[in-house]
Amino acid sequence: MRVSAYPLVDAEAAALLVLERTPVLGAERVPLIDCYGRVLAKDVVAPAQLPAFPSSAVDGFAVRAADGGKSLQVAGESAAGRPSERDLEPGSAIRILTGGVLPAGADCVVMLEDVKLDGDVVTVPGGLRPGQNFHAPGADLRAGERVLPAGSSLGPAEIGLAAALGLADLSVGRRPRVALMSTGDELVEVGERPGRGQIPDSNRWALLAALREAGAEVRLLGIGPDEPEALRRLVAGALAEVDVLVTSGGVSVGTHDLVKPLLESLGDVHVGRVKLKPGKPFTFATLPDGKLAFGLPGFPVSSLVTFEVFVRPALRKMQGHAQLDRPTLPVRLGYEARATADRTEYQRVTLRRDGRDLVAVSTGSQSSSRLMSLAGAHALVRIPPGDHGINEGTIVEVMILSLP
Amino acid sequence: MRVSAYPLVDAEAAALLVLERTPVLGAERVPLIDCYGRVLAKDVVAPAQLPAFPSSAVDGFAVRAADGGKSLQVAGESAAGRPSERDLEPGSAIRILTGGVLPAGADCVVMLEDVKLDGDVVTVPGGLRPGQNFHAPGADLRAGERVLPAGSSLGPAEIGLAAALGLADLSVGRRPRVALMSTGDELVEVGERPGRGQIPDSNRWALLAALREAGAEVRLLGIGPDEPEALRRLVAGALAEVDVLVTSGGVSVGTHDLVKPLLESLGDVHVGRVKLKPGKPFTFATLPDGKLAFGLPGFPVSSLVTFEVFVRPALRKMQGHAQLDRPTLPVRLGYEARATADRTEYQRVTLRRDGRDLVAVSTGSQSSSRLMSLAGAHALVRIPPGDHGINEGTIVEVMILSLP
Repeated sequence: MRVSAYPLVDAEAAALLVLERTPVLGAERVPLIDCYGRVLAKDVVAPAQLPAFPSSAVDGFAVRAADGGKSLQVAGESAAGRPSERDLEPGSAIRILTGGVLPAGADCVVMLEDVKLDGDVVTVPGGLRPGQNFHAPGADLRAGERVLPAGSSLGPAEIGLAAALGLADLSVGRRPRVALMSTGDELVEVGERPGRGQIPDSNRWALLAALREAGAEVRLLGIGPDEPEALRRLVAGALAEVDVLVTSGGVSVGTHDLVKPLLESLGDVHVGRVKLKPGKPFTFATLPDGKLAFGLPGFPVSSLVTFEVFVRPALRKMQGHAQLDRPTLPVRLGYEARATADRTEYQRVTLRRDGRDLVAVSTGSQSSSRLMSLAGAHALVRIPPGDHGINEGTIVEVMILSLP
Repeated sequence: MRVSAYPLVDAEAAALLVLERTPVLGAERVPLIDCYGRVLAKDVVAPAQLPAFPSSAVDGFAVRAADGGKSLQVAGESAAGRPSERDLEPGSAIRILTGGVLPAGADCVVMLEDVKLDGDVVTVPGGLRPGQNFHAPGADLRAGERVLPAGSSLGPAEIGLAAALGLADLSVGRRPRVALMSTGDELVEVGERPGRGQIPDSNRWALLAALREAGAEVRLLGIGPDEPEALRRLVAGALAEVDVLVTSGGVSVGTHDLVKPLLESLGDVHVGRVKLKPGKPFTFATLPDGKLAFGLPGFPVSSLVTFEVFVRPALRKMQGHAQLDRPTLPVRLGYEARATADRTEYQRVTLRRDGRDLVAVSTGSQSSSRLMSLAGAHALVRIPPGDHGINEGTIVEVMILSLP
């Protein structure tokens, strides 16, 4: 039993170090049906203009603006997908439906509501202006325009835009494959009845959800064996198939902690302790072939907070996200936040509205074992180390997890 | 060809009407591995206290506070999952590791860093306080406490909390099954080369992504046939297996629009037009067995905006979400917003920070065909109908899609 030999690294320095060592994974082409939530690997440039042809915005009649105020012979129809066979002759009108091609010779569309129709003769109002009620070719998008930058998250509008440009698949960042393992002699499977001193393995399920939110594909390794050689075989086998190893537990300094020696034997341990609360035992190592290993602490809140601070940005970098960190917003601190002398602290808060302000309310006891401090939390408040803390009423910039 | 017979309904009234007619689907038990993103159907109440036993927060020695300042015989070890066989005798110490059970007789833990260890004798500092460095039973959670309310979204912390309580599965709202169909003679499959007057079917892929974000399970019907009886057979067959039908296109008033007559023949059309821009032709019907049908307009922006305003809240209600609408935040309008006389308008904006303020910047031309107005947009600004619009610099409450 010994005091940790690892130097305590500043939390901010550790986060930078992790990102510096994190590779961007390659790109892959993915059909639109699977693009939701993926990250664009290359700029999307419009191969052609949109709309490709002048198309009616309404149901009505395609006419020449110069024929405003006249009664016109209806000489055909242009429906969506069924263009008129003939061009528009002066003194005539062509019935047109929303999405229909504006026939050659026409320069505006009159809405159905604005005409008088008598058999095959339509009387249109005066004062028509060329360009009315149709979408001109290229009005939405010019050919060659960059429409989506690399690093964008693909949501409904972005995917719809790619589809409108005729792109059936997109080049997106590959999802990181992550092996997730819990360690600890005290763990039993959720659903089994814990014996004396035992607890259910909750980190596996919490971290699985966090990994999925971050875009990872997860391979569950379950609870790691407590025999070093068996543990080493399990992890080495898994590493052949994944990009990242995430463990929880087993990173404190006690005699039964196996993760740090394992990572030391497999690669280079760059961070073994951080000035962070919760999450001091956080461990980060690089392994051969650009693979990464994150040893998260065993306490549930510590594992999720270190995931937020160190792992999530790295997984996003791997996928090519332009935005690695959570968004932040300024909020008014609704409580007196005490600081920890020598560690950056991430306190969990809910947010409520007070007029135009968001007010941060503590989720109560910030114990590293108390998941209730994180359940339903909207944000993390970063409290720098020192003696001062942050006074109630101060405006602070917080990491937003969700909005109220 | 006729002017629509459907009355124009206020956008807000239409949204209320949709929600009133939307059922909450039943609950189902789902194992933790599949709970991410689901909605809790019943309150989770703690079946037992947490922690279940007094457990050490650090590596060190379990002692009696009264023995502070003394040299103590080390009489055993309590590791996580391996409790000490013996109780703590006065004048002795028991080695304890993080997560280990505090032995009976001990009332505090001294951190390894704070002791002097010489063989089997440990000298602990004076001034020890009972309760130091361990988590007392029930300190995190009392038995019977409501820990998660019904209607909560299940994220990492919520799932971890359920696991820590030993719950291997949870009662969650059933996901709505949605059949998605595009209509329009102008549509070709994305990837096919459009002929004259044709466009790729982009709404299918945009709405698929939007439906997935909203928690739906989607059955893709592709592009509906333009022959009424074939269309009716396709839709009737799909409805046997889904809760909701979502169509895009075919809801304008032209002769080739088939969706409204179809919905009239299948159920009751409650909304056929709304005072909304974009999205005036939005159609809503109820079908037998509590099923719903949404006829979205064909223009890409119109279909996604009406999805946001009408469909997404309904899908969330079906799943039992406590929060049906997007969160809102106050932002400063960074442009002069013109209103539409007779329709509520949802303008698409990006947000940027200016000191403590969020400033809404227009995404440019708000044409209903221009998906670029929605790609990368952070928020929707609601502009009430009228002559006035909203002046630049005004603080408005906007629907947040994502944060910058």
